[in-house]
Amino acid sequence: MVIVQKFGGTSVGDLERIQSVAHRVAVTKKEGNDVVVVVSAMSGETNKLVDFAEYFSQNPARADMDMLLSSGERVTAALLSIALQEMGLDAIAMTGRKAGIVTDKHHTKARIERINPQMMKSAINEGKIIVVAGFQGVNSDGDVTTLGRGGSDLSAVAIAGALEADLCEIYTDVTGIFTTDPRIEPKAKKLEKISYDEMLELASLGAKVLQNRSVELAKKLNVNLVTRSSFCDEEGTLITKEENIMEKPLVSGIALDRNQARISLMGVNDRPGIASDIFNALAKSEVNVDMIIQNKAIDDTTNIDFTVPVGDLHDAKTVVDTFVKSGEIKDDSYNEDICKVSVVGVGMKSHAGVAAQAFSTMANENININMISTSEIKVSMVIDEKYAELAVRSLHDTYELDK
Amino acid sequence: MVIVQKFGGTSVGDLERIQSVAHRVAVTKKEGNDVVVVVSAMSGETNKLVDFAEYFSQNPARADMDMLLSSGERVTAALLSIALQEMGLDAIAMTGRKAGIVTDKHHTKARIERINPQMMKSAINEGKIIVVAGFQGVNSDGDVTTLGRGGSDLSAVAIAGALEADLCEIYTDVTGIFTTDPRIEPKAKKLEKISYDEMLELASLGAKVLQNRSVELAKKLNVNLVTRSSFCDEEGTLITKEENIMEKPLVSGIALDRNQARISLMGVNDRPGIASDIFNALAKSEVNVDMIIQNKAIDDTTNIDFTVPVGDLHDAKTVVDTFVKSGEIKDDSYNEDICKVSVVGVGMKSHAGVAAQAFSTMANENININMISTSEIKVSMVIDEKYAELAVRSLHDTYELDK
Repeated sequence: MVIVQKFGGTSVGDLERIQSVAHRVAVTKKEGNDVVVVVSAMSGETNKLVDFAEYFSQNPARADMDMLLSSGERVTAALLSIALQEMGLDAIAMTGRKAGIVTDKHHTKARIERINPQMMKSAINEGKIIVVAGFQGVNSDGDVTTLGRGGSDLSAVAIAGALEADLCEIYTDVTGIFTTDPRIEPKAKKLEKISYDEMLELASLGAKVLQNRSVELAKKLNVNLVTRSSFCDEEGTLITKEENIMEKPLVSGIALDRNQARISLMGVNDRPGIASDIFNALAKSEVNVDMIIQNKAIDDTTNIDFTVPVGDLHDAKTVVDTFVKSGEIKDDSYNEDICKVSVVGVGMKSHAGVAAQAFSTMANENININMISTSEIKVSMVIDEKYAELAVRSLHDTYELDK
Repeated sequence: MVIVQKFGGTSVGDLERIQSVAHRVAVTKKEGNDVVVVVSAMSGETNKLVDFAEYFSQNPARADMDMLLSSGERVTAALLSIALQEMGLDAIAMTGRKAGIVTDKHHTKARIERINPQMMKSAINEGKIIVVAGFQGVNSDGDVTTLGRGGSDLSAVAIAGALEADLCEIYTDVTGIFTTDPRIEPKAKKLEKISYDEMLELASLGAKVLQNRSVELAKKLNVNLVTRSSFCDEEGTLITKEENIMEKPLVSGIALDRNQARISLMGVNDRPGIASDIFNALAKSEVNVDMIIQNKAIDDTTNIDFTVPVGDLHDAKTVVDTFVKSGEIKDDSYNEDICKVSVVGVGMKSHAGVAAQAFSTMANENININMISTSEIKVSMVIDEKYAELAVRSLHDTYELDK
C-alpha cells in the first residue's frame, strides 16, 4: 500500500516525540508499505515566529510571512529524515517545492493548484521514505507560499490524491471521531467509519479534529482519510465515501456548538429586498450568518431571527444599528446564552422520522426549541445554552449511539 | 552607490538588534544608495539546530542538514524585511535561491559557482531594498545548499561582485582591523585601509574578523570590502586592492598565532622522497602543516621541524609514530608552548631590511627565534609562547605602528 502519514505540531512537539514518530513510520515501512510523511512545525514554533513578526509590524507583508512561517516545517522534516536514516532506513526530506506542490499566489492562505509528483514518485520507486514539509508550496513565480490554518492536513490530502495513495492518516492527540463529545457524554463511542458529508457537518458543528477544507479536498480527490492518535496504537476513524460504508447508521453523531448568538429583528419594514439588504450588509462586514428564520407579523411588518458566531456579534450589531437608525427595523434583541445541537447521519436520507424523534426527545425533556434548520443528513436545533448537555445526552440515548 | 551590507549573528542576535539594523539600513538607503542586505541566522539559532540534529545522529545526511540549517537565515531575512517595510521603506526578502546564488553539490560546504542577479537587479531598479538570506544557495538539482563557516560573508561578497557594488560592508562586533590585537598592545591603531594580500596574511595569522575564503573571493571579484561594527557608528577598515592604497605603509600589522605546536623529527633516514612520504601521510590525515624547516645532521641523517595547529597535534603524532616504528625516524619531540609572531606589510616588497629589523628587535629583547618563514609581504617567527606579548609590543614599537 501507499500510505501518507501526517503528524501535527503536538505529535512532533519535541525531539523525543519526533523520535517516536520515526519509530511509527519505520513500522509502517517495514510492514511493506510505501510511506510519505507530512509534518507540521514543532508545536509553538509557528506562534513564536508570528510573535517575532508582530514585534515589528501589525500588518507584515504576506510574502515575507510565508518565507518566515515556512521555515518551521522545514526544520521538522529535516530532523525526521535524519532520525529515520539513523535507524537504517532510506529517507529523503523534501520542501513543498521539491514535493511539487504548486499553489496560487495568495500568500499566507494559498490554495493548492496542482501537484507535480514526479520527484516523489521516483523517490518511492527507489524505496525511499519521503518526509515532506507540510503547510507550504510554491507559486508560479517560484515564491514560497503557505496554506493557512490546517495547511499541513491539506498538504497530506493533496499528496495522497496525487499519488493515489491507499490511505491518508492524520495523526493528532485524539484517537478519532466520536458519536459526541466524550466530556459531555462518557458513553460516547469512537466511530469506525464515517462519510465525508457527515464529517463535514460534524466539523462545521464543532468537532475540531479536522478542518472542512481538508475533508472537502479528500472528498473531491477520493482520498481515504483516517484520523488517529500519535500517542497510542488505537485504530482511528476512517473517513471515506458513502458507498464504502456498508452498514449506514441512521445517525452517526450528535454535535454541539456553543459558539452561537441569536439576533432577533422585530418590526422589519416588509418591502421587497429588505432581507437581501440586511444580509448583504452583514456579508460585507464579514459576519458569518448561520441559521435564518423569517415570519410575518400581524401588522404587515416582518420578524427576522438569525444566528452568528459569538465573535461576529459586535460587527453584526453595528450593521443592525444602521437599519434601526434608518427606521427599517423597529426593535432588535440579542441572546448569547444559546447553543446549537445537531443530529448528523447519512441514514436520514432514506429514513423519515429522524427529525421528529429529535423534536420529541426535546419535548420529553421540556427543552424549548428556538430555531430549527435541516439538511439531507442533519437536523440542527437552537436551544437555551443551559440545556446543552442534557440535550446532547438525551439525543445520544434516543439514537442508541452507545450501542 | 550600490552598497551590500552584511550583518552577522550577533548583529541580528535578538529582535531589538534586528530593529537597529533596520535603522542603519534605512539611513544608508535615505542617503541615496541602492542597498542589498545579507543576514545571518540570529546568534545561537544555527547551533541549536545542529544540536537538534545531533540528538538523532552523529552523522546526519548533509542534504538534510542544509534544509535544516538554511532555515535560520530565512527567518532573519523575513523579519528584517518586515521591519523595513514598517518604517515605510520598500523592501523584499529573498532566499539564496531567489537571489540567484547557484552552488556546486557539496552539501554543507558548497562553493558558489555563479550568481544570476536578474531578480536582484530588477528589484533594485524598482527602488527596493533587498534582504537576502545568507549562507545558502541552490545547486543544479534545485536543492538548497549551505556554504559552510563564514558562509554569509561569502554570500555578501559574491553578491557585491555580481552587482558590481561600490562597497561590501561586513558588520560584526569589532570596529575594524587593527595594527595588532588591542588586548595585547593598547596603543594598537585601527587601520583605515589594507590590501587583500595583507588581510589574507593577517587572517591566516589569527585575526578572526574575516575568513580567508571571503577575502580571496573579494580579491578575485575586485570587491571593496569594509569591516565595521554594527554596535557603533565608527568608520571601519577598507580592504581593497593594493593600487587603491596611495601611501603604502612599510608594515601594516603584527599578528600573533598562539594556536601552534612544533614537531621535531630527529635522525630522519635521508633517502630521496622521505619528506614527501611524511608530509603526504600528514595531508592524508588532514593535518594542516604550516612552517617546515629541514637541515642535515652530521651523521648523514636529517632533522625536520614543522608546525601544526594544536588541534591537529594528536593526528600528527599518530602519523609520525608509524615512521618511528618503521625505523625511518629515530626520535621525535613535541612543543605546544610556542607561538608565531608575524610582521605583515605590502611595503616590504620594495623595502629591504624589514626582516632584519624584526630579528634585531627579538635580539634586543633576548627572545630566541626557533623558526623563520618569509613571504613577499610577511615575516613569521616561531618563538617560545611566554614571550608572545613582549614580542608583539616590541615589534609594534619598532615599526612605529602607533603613529
